[in-house]
Amino acid sequence: MIKVVIIGAGNVATHLYQSFSKSKQLDVVQVFNRNVERLHFVNNPTKRTSNLEDLVEADIYLLAIKDEAIGELASELKVKSGIVAHTSGSQSMDILSGYENFGVFYPLQTFSKNKPVNFSEIPLCLEANSEENLDLLKKVGAFITDKVFEVSSEQRKALHVSAVFVNNFSNHLFSLAADFCKKEELPFDILRPLIRETVNKLESLDPYSAQTGPALRNDQKTISDHLEMLDEDRKKIYTILTESIQKLHGKEL
Amino acid sequence: MIKVVIIGAGNVATHLYQSFSKSKQLDVVQVFNRNVERLHFVNNPTKRTSNLEDLVEADIYLLAIKDEAIGELASELKVKSGIVAHTSGSQSMDILSGYENFGVFYPLQTFSKNKPVNFSEIPLCLEANSEENLDLLKKVGAFITDKVFEVSSEQRKALHVSAVFVNNFSNHLFSLAADFCKKEELPFDILRPLIRETVNKLESLDPYSAQTGPALRNDQKTISDHLEMLDEDRKKIYTILTESIQKLHGKEL
Repeated sequence: MIKVVIIGAGNVATHLYQSFSKSKQLDVVQVFNRNVERLHFVNNPTKRTSNLEDLVEADIYLLAIKDEAIGELASELKVKSGIVAHTSGSQSMDILSGYENFGVFYPLQTFSKNKPVNFSEIPLCLEANSEENLDLLKKVGAFITDKVFEVSSEQRKALHVSAVFVNNFSNHLFSLAADFCKKEELPFDILRPLIRETVNKLESLDPYSAQTGPALRNDQKTISDHLEMLDEDRKKIYTILTESIQKLHGKEL
Repeated sequence: MIKVVIIGAGNVATHLYQSFSKSKQLDVVQVFNRNVERLHFVNNPTKRTSNLEDLVEADIYLLAIKDEAIGELASELKVKSGIVAHTSGSQSMDILSGYENFGVFYPLQTFSKNKPVNFSEIPLCLEANSEENLDLLKKVGAFITDKVFEVSSEQRKALHVSAVFVNNFSNHLFSLAADFCKKEELPFDILRPLIRETVNKLESLDPYSAQTGPALRNDQKTISDHLEMLDEDRKKIYTILTESIQKLHGKEL
């Protein structure tokens, strides 16, 4: 069995713990958090600790903590031979270069505390300072998901910003539309099927081919009708995204 | 049985024809298109016509044609007693006020030619010039979907612009991310699970509560790291959406 220590008590730490615990090939030997109270999700209390000095030997130490805490924790954590890996999308691997064996174990997904996730569908982006370490991380990854990718720090940064576009920004567009519906006394439910279909289309089409709408058709009448209905902030968003669609698809405003 | 004539041969006309044909309470008595060749989707050739003079009597005439063609067709189409309704999200109902009975039958969905749709999940937005006409449209709508909504022209315009935000604009964000992945030699597939989860979350959360990310956390370090990686156009989009998230959620940049 591969022994794993998880550092952290947030969403990623919790979901990794739950997913690792299901695998017979993985043994979560300990979970660390400065505030031990937050480790209630760890079934066996003897595996919880808030003392870095107490950490047991393991093959992998996973730092599932906030980006800004990684550097400090890395300076305190003493590890002899195991691999120390963080789970951050935006931090370089080299932040852990003080260790002999280090890497990155980044699950590309949005986690919410109370929403269970199916880890087998989550892409894992892995990086390590040696082939041997990468192989071990891949082995661990393969126990919880089929989607294991070797991703460099540079690529991971591009993925992280892409994730902001596809998740944070599109969710915000949904919020703006929800707000719009509310003002017109319409239930947001009326938009849900369209949102679902927007994503379902991507099962068979790439997003470039799936593009539709007044910007793509260069339908100036509809565009100006829409702009008239929007406040200044939304007008700016509408205009800039319309221009960007037309630019990407080789049309002129 | 309620007799329906469909005018048009595009995506909406095709999908409406297919959906109506499945209902035992509806009889599509004729489908009109100026170019009769495009009516190949109509099984029975005797029901196809390209001559407006040949139109048969029906309870409802559905104009499933381009926005800009509705006015002209309405000026040519002679209808005695049936309801004339268009299927447009952006056109006012009054464009059909030359008829005695008129209305709107707007399916709020994105249609692609070769992708079958399940009409029962599509919201139908209905409007009519009288209670009686509205009732008939509702009756027809209920044969093909559970999601029938009475929606005023004003509300429909708000829905139409909302649809641009949730469908066209978010799809464009997916395109930009796909482009980004391509440059970094990463498969777009790596982002699909995140996109799916973004939408799955909305089954249990409203988009406002589902918001996450550096803009919401006001994580200036990550925001500036991201901006550094983007070209001028994408930087503008990133900045304006980040500001908009912070404004909606009551934070200051």
